[in-house]
Amino acid sequence: GWGRGEVADEGRWFTYDVVATDPATHARAGVFHTPHGDIPTPIFMPVGTKATVKGLLPSTLEQMGTKILLSNTYHLSMRPGADLVAARGGLHDFMRWQGPILTDSGGFQAFSHEEFFRLSDEGVRFRAVDYDGSWVSWTPEENMRIAQQLGADIVMQLDQCVGWPAPRDKVERSVELSSMWADRCFAAHTRPDQALFGIVQGGMDLDLRVRSLRHLQDSGDFPGYGIGGYSVGEDQTTMFESLAPLVSEHMPMGKPRYLMGVGTPSTLVHAVGCGVDMFDCVLPTRTARMGTAFSSEGRLNLKNARFATDDAPIDPACHCPACAGGFTRAYVHHLVRQREMLGSILLSQHNVCYVLDLMRRARQVIIDGTYADFVAAWDQSPASRDW
Amino acid sequence: GWGRGEVADEGRWFTYDVVATDPATHARAGVFHTPHGDIPTPIFMPVGTKATVKGLLPSTLEQMGTKILLSNTYHLSMRPGADLVAARGGLHDFMRWQGPILTDSGGFQAFSHEEFFRLSDEGVRFRAVDYDGSWVSWTPEENMRIAQQLGADIVMQLDQCVGWPAPRDKVERSVELSSMWADRCFAAHTRPDQALFGIVQGGMDLDLRVRSLRHLQDSGDFPGYGIGGYSVGEDQTTMFESLAPLVSEHMPMGKPRYLMGVGTPSTLVHAVGCGVDMFDCVLPTRTARMGTAFSSEGRLNLKNARFATDDAPIDPACHCPACAGGFTRAYVHHLVRQREMLGSILLSQHNVCYVLDLMRRARQVIIDGTYADFVAAWDQSPASRDW
Ligand SMILES: [Zn+2]
Ligand SMILES: [Zn+2]
Repeated sequence: GWGRGEVADEGRWFTYDVVATDPATHARAGVFHTPHGDIPTPIFMPVGTKATVKGLLPSTLEQMGTKILLSNTYHLSMRPGADLVAARGGLHDFMRWQGPILTDSGGFQAFSHEEFFRLSDEGVRFRAVDYDGSWVSWTPEENMRIAQQLGADIVMQLDQCVGWPAPRDKVERSVELSSMWADRCFAAHTRPDQALFGIVQGGMDLDLRVRSLRHLQDSGDFPGYGIGGYSVGEDQTTMFESLAPLVSEHMPMGKPRYLMGVGTPSTLVHAVGCGVDMFDCVLPTRTARMGTAFSSEGRLNLKNARFATDDAPIDPACHCPACAGGFTRAYVHHLVRQREMLGSILLSQHNVCYVLDLMRRARQVIIDGTYADFVAAWDQSPASRDW
Repeated sequence: GWGRGEVADEGRWFTYDVVATDPATHARAGVFHTPHGDIPTPIFMPVGTKATVKGLLPSTLEQMGTKILLSNTYHLSMRPGADLVAARGGLHDFMRWQGPILTDSGGFQAFSHEEFFRLSDEGVRFRAVDYDGSWVSWTPEENMRIAQQLGADIVMQLDQCVGWPAPRDKVERSVELSSMWADRCFAAHTRPDQALFGIVQGGMDLDLRVRSLRHLQDSGDFPGYGIGGYSVGEDQTTMFESLAPLVSEHMPMGKPRYLMGVGTPSTLVHAVGCGVDMFDCVLPTRTARMGTAFSSEGRLNLKNARFATDDAPIDPACHCPACAGGFTRAYVHHLVRQREMLGSILLSQHNVCYVLDLMRRARQVIIDGTYADFVAAWDQSPASRDW
């Protein structure tokens, strides 16, 4: 349970302790302290965009070892509304999750509204075509007001994200805007039981990434840094070309590094090797609802006819509630084929638990000082066929 | 858990003990003994048509006090197929439910295929338009073969069901056919760890109902009786006109009486008063997926705007995992409006638990000898507004 005993004392809120560094990679194990509990890193944060991780009860998430959930300021501000959530006691009470929560600013969602999107120094305006089509206007100050109403433990600055490929001047402009908004968010953010993370932008250009980081370091004492604007269409090699040196050579040791919206298990394994601490991704739950599972045998499509008579659990190496509960691939195949809700539920349990467990194993291996061997073994294993 | 200690010894399988009879009504409390455990009556059986109660894990069903599940021979014979289920160890192992299971024959599903439906003395032929459109041919013998492969604790005879209103000669013909098929099912059914129930048909005509019952009593020693062909379009008054005397005056005391596919909580309360012991109905889970809840305040539509800021649980009088878990109407409203899976899950937990609990309370009141007062109080309470 989330007994008060687990919770960091106020003096330690939002400090980051490095527990171990791997000798042969840039991986590190740490602990980030929040009012709702300590977060061991590296960590995967299941995504509960609309104040629910699709198909999973909070008690199941806790049972599976979830230490922090992610939710989304944009979506919650549209429905049910930040005022309403605040009047319900905030997001933790509303969704019945007493562990730490991180809310993304919604900058990425604004960006993905594309043609319905207007940008100025002042802020961002876009049409909420995924809701009632109304125009949403956000200044950094308004975004912080909403984030403080929702009451997550960690909130992200409003930033601007560009796709890939993008002309350099467009990427530069996004760094300028994100930097300016970082300052305004920092000034507007006042809630002491909530950490505000700055976000490093800069596309695939290392020098722009470093420029963005330096600005954040110079402008305010952010307790942690998000790394945004990856997984926007580029391939893995392109991503790691700038990500690896950014994290391992330029980011400060004493603050957590959160790679936003990335990625497959293999990407996580490699990013941890660069020194990334925190991850979120919709893949585990989204692919579950499409009938696919991560596994030690690689990505499995449970809809495939070969699973109809397969009496093994989803992954024989897994200890999630679905696999430990004895549900077979044959049964899950039947459920998925018949579009039964329980198929999505069992696969969501499995996939989320799989990624949580991968980060737990990674952390132990870092503490053991053998992360390089772990990565090499991973790359050789069928598990790495996870795209 | 389903420890073997709970399981009736073989000598008692499929016997029915009357534990108490109410002095002022025809209600009775009893126990039906099956290989997978004892079933206290009156009882509600959650419906798991396709080997899953939609949105609910077997462990949740057990936690909520489910004593027996219902599944469906027709649907399972189509997907994933009875051979496949048998090769997986039978239905209990396949769906990971070690308590008792009852499978309906699929006679009702065949009947509901209407224009794609051919009937003869020999059996029934219909097009599986809800699957691949292939023609399905069932004799009573083939239906029993499938039921024995699936391996439920209780199986129902193949019967013929007519709608309402129907001309008397059509109802008579359905009684004749169902009687003939009862004999053939009885002769074809050989599995000793499985009880075969006969089904009383006869529409709304008490004399035809009694004729149907007498045939079943004369033809074989069925360990229990289904009552089919109600809830086919008639109103409550019409149903109880024949149902009440059938059950209370004509059905034998020493065997369980299962009213098939009925109905709202209020209907259950009144049918128990007539002496009915077992119920199944899709309403709790189906209405849950539509966003409505049974409650001590009557039926609630959680989509309604008035629940957006309601901080009460779904039903303050309920102890289900959803209500005890502290999820508010405001949160469930949000989930239902956003079509989030967790809304269906929480409401399904609540509705199923609500009806299970209603039957538990009814049983206790029968043992206390005050069932008439219970019915009177129910009819006066807001809970009875449940349609
Ligand atoms: Zn698993
Ligand atoms: Zn409830």
